[in-house]
Parts: sequence; C-alpha cells; structure tokens
Amino acid sequence: MSAEIEEILKRYSNFPNVSGIIIVDAFAIPIKTTMEYTLTVHYAALANNLLAKGSKMVQKLDSSNELTALRLRTLNHELMIVPEENFFIVVVQKPCE
Amino acid sequence: MSAEIEEILKRYSNFPNVSGIIIVDAFAIPIKTTMEYTLTVHYAALANNLLAKGSKMVQKLDSSNELTALRLRTLNHELMIVPEENFFIVVVQKPCE
Repeated sequence: MSAEIEEILKRYSNFPNVSGIIIVDAFAIPIKTTMEYTLTVHYAALANNLLAKGSKMVQKLDSSNELTALRLRTLNHELMIVPEENFFIVVVQKPCE
Repeated sequence: MSAEIEEILKRYSNFPNVSGIIIVDAFAIPIKTTMEYTLTVHYAALANNLLAKGSKMVQKLDSSNELTALRLRTLNHELMIVPEENFFIVVVQKPCE
C-alpha cells in the first residue's frame, strides 16, 4: 500500500493552496501526514466521524448511492475528505478567493 | 424574511445544474422547497444533522473558526449545505464533469 500512499500524497500536493494532507486507515489511525501530529490526530478523528455520518446520510436518501467526497468550507480554510476503499484522505487547503 | 428567502431561491437557481433547493429553519423544518415534499423532509433532517456535526467539528479544531459551507459529492449528485443565521439552505446539483 505504501507506493499507493506516496502516489496520493504527490497527487494532492499538486492541488492549489494545500497546507496539509493526512491519510487515515479504516481504524481512524493516521498512517501518513504532512501536518503536526497532535493536529493530525484531531483532524483524523473528527473527519472519520463526519465521513461516517455523511456516508450514512447519503445511503439513507438512496441506498444505491455513495459518498465520494466531503468538503467543508470554513472562515480559515477548506477541508476535503475523500474516502477510498481501505483508508481516507484529508486535505487542508487555504480558501480560494 | 420571505423577501430574503425569495432572493436566496433566485440566487441559487442560477447556479449550474441545480435540481432542487430547500430552505430549512432553525428547528429543521423546511420552510421553502422546489422538491417533492417527502424527499424535502428527508434532506432537511439529514442535512441538519450533518451540519450540526460539521459545525461542532470545526469549532472543536479551532474555537475561533466557523463552518460556512458543507458540500457532499456522491455518485449521483452533489449536495451543498449553507448555514445562515436563522436557517440553512440545501442545494442539490447534478455533478459537474
């Protein structure tokens, strides 16, 4: 899996205004991060929670449907959460103008 | 408030690929919708839930920060949830290519 992880890091690093990338496994444990570790753990736990809720919501509205990405825009930054089969990715971006 | 609501409906109708707009009050009750009513009620309840969770998550990471929009991308459509002071807006869009 580690080559796949490196590939993902490279891909998302090319997104505009990226300030951090975290890869989180199915147990909500961060397996790779470009951010400070305590902050990484917080982002991972909360993103995991929100992703689970979002997926459930989408499936409740239509059981044939599936959540492919979750994006939070805040005053200070944007957060993108992308579920993959055995892990998920959290990307922190400075907001676009 | 009703002029404001009409203004919002008009504004979001101009977004690309919009297939539905719902305005939901602070009690999670839909006060205006362009969608079928049962579906509206489902969207409103679930969006309300996710919005509360997302806001709490953002504030937990940084108490001076605030969630300004939540976007869910799914296989079939995109959902945008925008909190305002006394209500929130749910916009359903067909996914962009």
